[in-house]
Amino acid sequence: MRTYEELLAIINKELDDYKIDSSPSELYEPINYILSLGGKRLRPALTLMGCQIYNPDITDAVKPALAMEVFHNFTLMHDDIMDDAPLRRGQATVHEKWDLSTAILSGDIMLVKAYDLLMDVDDSKLRRVLEVFNQTAARVCEGQQYDMNFENQKKVRLNDYIYMITLKTAVLLGGSLQIGALIGGADEKDAKALYEFGKNMGIGFQLMDDILDVYGDVDKFGKQVGGDIIANKKTYLLIKALETADKETKQELKHWIKVKDFDKKEKVKAVKKIYSKLGIKKAALAEMNSFFNLAEKSLLNVSSSIESKVVLTELAEKLKVRLT
Amino acid sequence: MRTYEELLAIINKELDDYKIDSSPSELYEPINYILSLGGKRLRPALTLMGCQIYNPDITDAVKPALAMEVFHNFTLMHDDIMDDAPLRRGQATVHEKWDLSTAILSGDIMLVKAYDLLMDVDDSKLRRVLEVFNQTAARVCEGQQYDMNFENQKKVRLNDYIYMITLKTAVLLGGSLQIGALIGGADEKDAKALYEFGKNMGIGFQLMDDILDVYGDVDKFGKQVGGDIIANKKTYLLIKALETADKETKQELKHWIKVKDFDKKEKVKAVKKIYSKLGIKKAALAEMNSFFNLAEKSLLNVSSSIESKVVLTELAEKLKVRLT
Repeated sequence: MRTYEELLAIINKELDDYKIDSSPSELYEPINYILSLGGKRLRPALTLMGCQIYNPDITDAVKPALAMEVFHNFTLMHDDIMDDAPLRRGQATVHEKWDLSTAILSGDIMLVKAYDLLMDVDDSKLRRVLEVFNQTAARVCEGQQYDMNFENQKKVRLNDYIYMITLKTAVLLGGSLQIGALIGGADEKDAKALYEFGKNMGIGFQLMDDILDVYGDVDKFGKQVGGDIIANKKTYLLIKALETADKETKQELKHWIKVKDFDKKEKVKAVKKIYSKLGIKKAALAEMNSFFNLAEKSLLNVSSSIESKVVLTELAEKLKVRLT
Repeated sequence: MRTYEELLAIINKELDDYKIDSSPSELYEPINYILSLGGKRLRPALTLMGCQIYNPDITDAVKPALAMEVFHNFTLMHDDIMDDAPLRRGQATVHEKWDLSTAILSGDIMLVKAYDLLMDVDDSKLRRVLEVFNQTAARVCEGQQYDMNFENQKKVRLNDYIYMITLKTAVLLGGSLQIGALIGGADEKDAKALYEFGKNMGIGFQLMDDILDVYGDVDKFGKQVGGDIIANKKTYLLIKALETADKETKQELKHWIKVKDFDKKEKVKAVKKIYSKLGIKKAALAEMNSFFNLAEKSLLNVSSSIESKVVLTELAEKLKVRLT
């Protein structure tokens, strides 16, 4: 079994070779740009991991793995417009570096290119792989819409939030793994169980991201700590706090949500104090762990040997321990 | 052979049944909306026409035909953002009626839905149909990019312009016909010849659109006459005029292009006068006719009987005679 690092080397080589040198350059340069910004390459790695469980020769999964990364970056390019984000991985977003039209159109063609890459599978698997991809892609769009809806929605419940991150983030991790497994030769039952693993790990992964935004180490993660608090983002932590707070604490929290003119550090400190009083960090970590545990349980339904699944277990562990 | 009108009835019924009633409604309502705005449904009609040449039973082509219309409307939804267009077929565009994010995301999921519909073909044809579609879709995006580039480009040559409208408009008509033919059972040679027919008809069709914008009957076409002149749009007519004008006339034309403060009617009248002096209408009509003729010639390379192709010839005639 190749390790995550070994698979990453294959993906990065493939990404290097993928550079598009077509006309008009205005359309293709932003694609090369966003793909060059780096990232964990988690989705293509999952596709290759899914494949190697069933076939040591992962050649057939390489282009479809790339498809998952191209699709993911398409969603980032368009999400950045919708979120009005100036930066992506510390660099200018495409709509900032070029303009709105470029970011829309380059994104559009990326989605077409993702299908191109995905089609590089055996005829016998083409339809099924496309079906999984289409369903996954539609759900990712639905998740982004729910995320935007939540911004203007007064009350968001924890279940709604989990459902949203499932669609927006988790199903793509699940789908990437499922597609890889199908290409490798998995039966539908195994492929579905692997999807469940990826999905549950994805939910856990997103919850961890929420936690890190508040409790992460700036130097280690390179993110502004408390960004979600400053922006009143309805994450698991804020929703949980609003749900569990007594009347007085809730009013205090709502004050910090409503106040227009504030010192950022002061707001982060005050909200963190409320979280601390309500035990939010512990609750969020427990919720996160429950999904990582669910992921591990899903692996029990995968019929292949334990050894063949160890790379997945290791990946989940690796993702989970980002918080110390 | 079913006529265009008969095929249209099938398409409109299918479009009625297609209404998406899923959540989140913010994502799906704009799709139902834009598809309800009407239009000639030329692309799905071409898919059905391509199929019926080879198979009287066009059932297998109905969903893929719908895919071509959904794809076309996806491009309209995103193009309207890029062109900052307030109206589409006399109604508010999606980004005006809803907002920018909605128009981006609804468009994205429409592209995914187009693939869903397109996949409703026999396994034996799936890959080839998708290949043609992917190539077509990529070219349409490239055409839109060239169109936007032209706005900021000082000199656009006639050949560049024809190339741009080929990509942006014509290949989708060609591809729609080609996909229908392949589904009906055409061999690659026939399907390619039909693509050429659709492509050349599409170029002629776009040239006619340029001509109608200047010389069309307002009451008949419901368009503001001279819109392209007012906006200095680099159409075949303007490019041809700039290429053929003597020094003095060229300066007069450039004056009207550069002037910021003007009476719309006066500008249209003045530019039309220049066109008249240079014989631009005649030249544009000749160019248009040459492409309609090329289209008809392409049909000679289609091996099926003349009778089976008559619906296509009639369609080309119908499209061409819009100008009296």
